[in-house]
Amino acid sequence: MRTSIATVSLSGSLTEKLTAAARAGFDGVEIFENDLLASPLGPEEVRARTADLGLTIDLYQPMRDIEGVPQGEFTRGLRRARHKFEVMERLGADTVLLCSSVSPLAVDDDELAAGQLHQLADLAEDFGIRVAYEALAWGRHVSTYDHAWSIVEAADHPALGTCLDSFHILARGSDPKGIEDIPGEKIFFLQLADAPLMAMDVLQWSRHYRCFPGQGGFDIAGLLAHVVRAGYDGPLSLEVFNDVFRQAEAGPTAVDARRSLLVLQEETGLAAPPEPVVPSGVAFAELVTPDVVPVSALLGALGFSRTARHRSKPVDLWQQGEARVLVNTGPAARRDGTALAAIGLESPDPAGAARRAESLLAPVLPRRRALQDAPLDAVAAPDGTELFFCATDRPGLPSWTGDFEPVEHRQDPRRLARVDHLALTQPWHQFDEAALFHHSVLGLSAQESVDVADPYGLHRSRAVTNSDGTVRIALSVGPAPSDDGARAQHIAFATEDVVTAARCFRDAGGRLLAMPANYYDDLAARFEFTDEELATYRELGILYDRDSDGEFRHCYTETIGRVFFELVQRDGGYRGYGAQNAPVRLAAQHAVRPGR
Amino acid sequence: MRTSIATVSLSGSLTEKLTAAARAGFDGVEIFENDLLASPLGPEEVRARTADLGLTIDLYQPMRDIEGVPQGEFTRGLRRARHKFEVMERLGADTVLLCSSVSPLAVDDDELAAGQLHQLADLAEDFGIRVAYEALAWGRHVSTYDHAWSIVEAADHPALGTCLDSFHILARGSDPKGIEDIPGEKIFFLQLADAPLMAMDVLQWSRHYRCFPGQGGFDIAGLLAHVVRAGYDGPLSLEVFNDVFRQAEAGPTAVDARRSLLVLQEETGLAAPPEPVVPSGVAFAELVTPDVVPVSALLGALGFSRTARHRSKPVDLWQQGEARVLVNTGPAARRDGTALAAIGLESPDPAGAARRAESLLAPVLPRRRALQDAPLDAVAAPDGTELFFCATDRPGLPSWTGDFEPVEHRQDPRRLARVDHLALTQPWHQFDEAALFHHSVLGLSAQESVDVADPYGLHRSRAVTNSDGTVRIALSVGPAPSDDGARAQHIAFATEDVVTAARCFRDAGGRLLAMPANYYDDLAARFEFTDEELATYRELGILYDRDSDGEFRHCYTETIGRVFFELVQRDGGYRGYGAQNAPVRLAAQHAVRPGR
Repeated sequence: MRTSIATVSLSGSLTEKLTAAARAGFDGVEIFENDLLASPLGPEEVRARTADLGLTIDLYQPMRDIEGVPQGEFTRGLRRARHKFEVMERLGADTVLLCSSVSPLAVDDDELAAGQLHQLADLAEDFGIRVAYEALAWGRHVSTYDHAWSIVEAADHPALGTCLDSFHILARGSDPKGIEDIPGEKIFFLQLADAPLMAMDVLQWSRHYRCFPGQGGFDIAGLLAHVVRAGYDGPLSLEVFNDVFRQAEAGPTAVDARRSLLVLQEETGLAAPPEPVVPSGVAFAELVTPDVVPVSALLGALGFSRTARHRSKPVDLWQQGEARVLVNTGPAARRDGTALAAIGLESPDPAGAARRAESLLAPVLPRRRALQDAPLDAVAAPDGTELFFCATDRPGLPSWTGDFEPVEHRQDPRRLARVDHLALTQPWHQFDEAALFHHSVLGLSAQESVDVADPYGLHRSRAVTNSDGTVRIALSVGPAPSDDGARAQHIAFATEDVVTAARCFRDAGGRLLAMPANYYDDLAARFEFTDEELATYRELGILYDRDSDGEFRHCYTETIGRVFFELVQRDGGYRGYGAQNAPVRLAAQHAVRPGR
Repeated sequence: MRTSIATVSLSGSLTEKLTAAARAGFDGVEIFENDLLASPLGPEEVRARTADLGLTIDLYQPMRDIEGVPQGEFTRGLRRARHKFEVMERLGADTVLLCSSVSPLAVDDDELAAGQLHQLADLAEDFGIRVAYEALAWGRHVSTYDHAWSIVEAADHPALGTCLDSFHILARGSDPKGIEDIPGEKIFFLQLADAPLMAMDVLQWSRHYRCFPGQGGFDIAGLLAHVVRAGYDGPLSLEVFNDVFRQAEAGPTAVDARRSLLVLQEETGLAAPPEPVVPSGVAFAELVTPDVVPVSALLGALGFSRTARHRSKPVDLWQQGEARVLVNTGPAARRDGTALAAIGLESPDPAGAARRAESLLAPVLPRRRALQDAPLDAVAAPDGTELFFCATDRPGLPSWTGDFEPVEHRQDPRRLARVDHLALTQPWHQFDEAALFHHSVLGLSAQESVDVADPYGLHRSRAVTNSDGTVRIALSVGPAPSDDGARAQHIAFATEDVVTAARCFRDAGGRLLAMPANYYDDLAARFEFTDEELATYRELGILYDRDSDGEFRHCYTETIGRVFFELVQRDGGYRGYGAQNAPVRLAAQHAVRPGR
């Protein structure tokens, strides 16, 4: 189906919004009246700009407070409408959104409303315009879609139909099944918005917290199925009022928006992009660094060995068990300092995973490789992290390891088994996009979002995982937009014995993050550890958590650039990340890095 | 009464929080457990630090999920409590907050709860500790203050009392009158927090949106009166969970916090600071500028004349009717660029106004003046704007104008009458503080907060005014913390004829901000202007608004540095600021200043 987006969903001037929508591949836009009013471009110029960009203007929005009012008020309303229809003629827009009255003058009289809508539709028809009447969830007398439809039905005019808005329908708790009783050709327009499930005033909820389908808690796919079954064949159009998107760059938001509609169409059976290929493990994590010495020292202390070197690039492979870390001292490092730049995801079908990603608008990365290198499929995540789809040492498939030449090395006894999880702080404006990206593009499941108190503000954190927990990525976001260069990242390695791993690390010269003594007094209060156990944890800075499934012990290294490492021991079926301990860990990290 | 603040209300490490609380003049603190756990200081060190700062530790908080649970669970709870009591002994804290159980294991059995609380109090007594039991608004079985009190009464133990929390009481809609039925000596503690009135889930509301008394919508003074009448004589303690305060610098937040308690005590009749002296007009606005030429040109084009020069400082007085602008090219200008640095408020009693401000913790500014200058009382607003309390040319009082020597000038016909309002963008973290400051320190009334859509994010705006509208300050805040140097400021001048004023300004070489043509098409749709009127507004960039009281016409000049000017014509009783037009104006300003 055609896709469209309301200009109010994007940040910037009208031209910035139109450009972003076109670049993201939308077919059309809804023009929000205030965006037009504030634009230096006249309607004809907007029309030309839109056409140049290959966009249609699917809706002009909104008109309101026209129907169900006393005659004098209605006459003024019709006069206003005529002006708007003239503007729409100049714009080349043929459908107008009319919201149900919120005017204190509106009266509760469906017959009156229907009669006035009929007159309005007569006027619209003269301009070749269709009126799409929508129930606002906070409309004065008309607040449900079936009520709006019954008035449209009674008005019985070819230029009058209804507009359905998923937010208004689902926020009110209406049953969307009744949509199937509306003839498809009388559904003039469909606006889609999701929202997190919150118990709050519906108007505030609508104006500040809407999000793209798949980012909230509503069953938008279920609603869309009813609309399609009713016979609707107009555009799927996003109308999202969101305080964060209003500030974010329009380009990425538009891509995020269109991706949400692609996924929605897949969920509803309206489109069949390449199937998701869920990654089955972490092949490697790639650090870039301008100074290889401290990074090598730290990896060495963790028990990694430098096992190979890339044939054509300044990249070392450090390995221990199934945990692999690439250390890249190439050009990117000089730009970004020490950072986690790329993740290799073990994929059952790397080419298929890349096709899926590309179909969902993930930027495909150029293959910057020498002729003899293995062809690696890679895309960029919303935070810029490069994701490589890998088949490590699997017969019949090119392996990235083939690009590396073994180097002589000593193999210490293995203490770390594999990457347990990767933790990536997201750009502030991209947190919702990141969760939808990892879910839809990679097929990972998004967990509940949790709040974590840092001494200097609340963080939010949300993990995405595959079903057996062999790929876990913890996405988090700080309290406010801030310097991207400071966004922390870490790699957690799984061990079966965190005490030994931590001790060996320390004995090899590694520096563990010290935890406050008070934390251990609290552990003693909450759990029944032996004095010896507690002394060990205290000595090594090991944190502890427990849930109904199992236990979690973890500790942290010092930070180099943006990156630090965590050692984690999971016992039983513990599936979390020690969120309970995060405030203490964050405070400890601030304490060794004074001045915030 | 003694004042106290929970460490969770402030940002930073525990030591930063304690220092801020002490500097703001609090008598004590509640130590939030997580702040202690995350601190590198042991309990004894915290005790010593607190004592050094002259603070008492009034409460250790919180313990929870101890009472109303099965025996095995209770035994574990008692064990936990003993550990906590040991920590409190080391801290030197003698009162612990116990929140009503939220445990899924808790049973609805008041007798069981009372019995277990009695046992807990026995244990506490051994440590010389008192237990203050509080109903959480979302407690599993105990969620109202009277219910919690009935359990405390039944438990009947000298070491057990209740803790009252204004948020939990008022958010549930409980009638606080019943507090008077609780014996004062059994109210062991009182926690105060306000909150904006919002229809939302009470737990989310409590954890993210609490604010200091006077910043929200609850009648905290009314509640406090009941608590005092019950005979409570412990500290007034703030416990405020707020996402913004968590990020803000602890120092200013602590001052804001303590100011809120001073005002609250005044409202409740518990304290009598010097009475507010409401300003009766704007004596002057002072601009600092590193380049006097464009500022002078702009003021000249607006019809101002340079009428006097300061005797000892590089400051010019520009005047027109009752509108006075000081232009200061002194040292501050070289630091800040062109900015609105100070406001002279006409005051019935300048010395009294300064005493009021000082008693409410407004920083009193040093009198940087030459010997012969008039003694001017001045304080700093939260955004750094200097506020001077003035008696302009009034007999018997020193006048700031006495410091100026008249210079020869030509007087054009007067087009502007006075300052209509001043608009100041606030630092992002200080918006709530600013409203409380202007209300409490200056005695201005705060209006409703409104959202204004800028192309790049939502702004909020809230005006403070005196009763006859001769002092109006519009406080606003942008969508996210950002560069303070970019915070826009403007001075609006009142005129009886905005068309003539704008035309003269333009004819004198002034540049008006052009408004988009589409805006005027919309005006034509909404109102019945003659073509000629509309053509005039379009030509001059005049915006229009109307409410039930009157009409508002306004236009804007270009921006110099951070500052621009507005010309406003109010007819009838219009009391707003044209918020309806702000999105169009903001977009127009972005359009002439590309690149955000």
